[in-house]
Amino acid sequence: MRKDLPPKVELHEVVMRDGIQNEKIIVPTAEKVEIIDGLAVCGLKRIEVSSFVNPRLVPQMADAEELWERIERKEGVVYSALILSERGLDQAVRCDVPHVGIFVSASETHSMKNSNKSIAEATKDVLKLLKKGRFAGMEVRAGVMNAFGCAYEGEVPAERVTGLVGDLMAEGPDEICLADTSGMANPGQVKEVLSLVKELTGDETISLHLHNTRGMGLANVWAALQEGITAFDTSLGGLGGCPFIPGAKGNIATEDTVYMLEDMGIKTGVDLDQLIEVSLSFEKFFGKKFPAMISHLKGKR
Amino acid sequence: MRKDLPPKVELHEVVMRDGIQNEKIIVPTAEKVEIIDGLAVCGLKRIEVSSFVNPRLVPQMADAEELWERIERKEGVVYSALILSERGLDQAVRCDVPHVGIFVSASETHSMKNSNKSIAEATKDVLKLLKKGRFAGMEVRAGVMNAFGCAYEGEVPAERVTGLVGDLMAEGPDEICLADTSGMANPGQVKEVLSLVKELTGDETISLHLHNTRGMGLANVWAALQEGITAFDTSLGGLGGCPFIPGAKGNIATEDTVYMLEDMGIKTGVDLDQLIEVSLSFEKFFGKKFPAMISHLKGKR
Repeated sequence: MRKDLPPKVELHEVVMRDGIQNEKIIVPTAEKVEIIDGLAVCGLKRIEVSSFVNPRLVPQMADAEELWERIERKEGVVYSALILSERGLDQAVRCDVPHVGIFVSASETHSMKNSNKSIAEATKDVLKLLKKGRFAGMEVRAGVMNAFGCAYEGEVPAERVTGLVGDLMAEGPDEICLADTSGMANPGQVKEVLSLVKELTGDETISLHLHNTRGMGLANVWAALQEGITAFDTSLGGLGGCPFIPGAKGNIATEDTVYMLEDMGIKTGVDLDQLIEVSLSFEKFFGKKFPAMISHLKGKR
Repeated sequence: MRKDLPPKVELHEVVMRDGIQNEKIIVPTAEKVEIIDGLAVCGLKRIEVSSFVNPRLVPQMADAEELWERIERKEGVVYSALILSERGLDQAVRCDVPHVGIFVSASETHSMKNSNKSIAEATKDVLKLLKKGRFAGMEVRAGVMNAFGCAYEGEVPAERVTGLVGDLMAEGPDEICLADTSGMANPGQVKEVLSLVKELTGDETISLHLHNTRGMGLANVWAALQEGITAFDTSLGGLGGCPFIPGAKGNIATEDTVYMLEDMGIKTGVDLDQLIEVSLSFEKFFGKKFPAMISHLKGKR
């Protein structure tokens, strides 16, 4: 282990939400359960199970309530959901969801497309949801989407991101997440934005949600590690993409991230060989090769 | 431009050597000439044209002498060749090659497979070649292959790399290159090895030859930039791979590297739009999608 790096990192597996929400093939609930339970066995300690959204807009999430019934809920694993509305939060309460993520976009255009609200309106609603979630006894993570750029608008000023983080901090979330929704972050920018955001969050956990759209996913992880970040969203196989962002596919792959971290002596708690088996079995279900690299490597890992 | 980063970086385009040497389709000389001349127009200032090797072992390089005849040799561009033997160096002299790369492997197994010599024997021969190249008035770059790990042997001790760099420095090369031939480097290791090698090289230029085999290519570029490295080998489209290394395909893509650097305000002198056109035209020749990401991006770059 290198002295300048954190000894361990926590990965939040998002394949069943961000990973598949854009996929045309609808994954049957039984397959979702098998993969989620399999991921828990691999040692992942945080798993996003679903969002609660309009099934007409995101058909892949239509079975969310049933899914929450059927997954194993392994001890020591935090299962989470993404919440976009009060209705969704009510569903989460009914499903006894212990951890929710609630996000606002830093891009006006994306905010309108994603929620039909301006950033200001969306922020007001997000703050209400955060309060309600905490009141319901859930752990809440509050996040900023498109924190490093927007596929519609291009550059997103860092001050807009820090402004939103400041707003979110007022509701005392358990974690602040910065999401590179459009996959536009570069490592220099990650370093810069994080150093600004850290001034606002103090000891609060910051997590990063990164995509590999432009090949810089792991470069951004490395930049964040150097800023002391120890929590990352990753997606099995590198699946992923926002339905309202053109070309924004490919979360950073869980297996590639685990490989890089463990190779540098940073503990993830994840069994890489088992994880690759789960990834390849999910590939088999979809009948296509996922973007992850380590799972397809011939020769020495 | 960020104060902690170098203002500019020099890219050494290796697609016509490392990029295609492993491809089964033999690229006709005319196509090679068109791509090489096109790359020079894009603003690349260093272009590897060929190696001089046994055409039975690497048929893709069989037209090396003709190719050197036919390329344009644009002013201000340094064209280079990879040299593996005295015979190859003699050919380079005949072809009026201004810049040669001469490498030794840090892995015994790879050294035997690549050159049929032990590291010690190979080093002796490389030192002779360096001397002879300099005597012939060429610029010489001396390099260490598998400097960050070996597909056959696994870990390569940093002391072996620094030992070899020390040996190579004795011949006063114009540049030291560390090659991640097996694509096994991680950014923590890049940082560590570079800090050791820099102690030996002083003001001498160090360049890195990186692969993206495990998705860490650009993470390693970022780690190297922070160590002050300003010279990188890249390959159009991310083509590449050593014929004697299992699974070691995929140099870091020129277009993805240019995108990342320019996005952080680091000048490369390369016109990205033109470069993508050249990359897509070479894709068309091969009739397959290359690994580079930026060339295939839909929506905002």
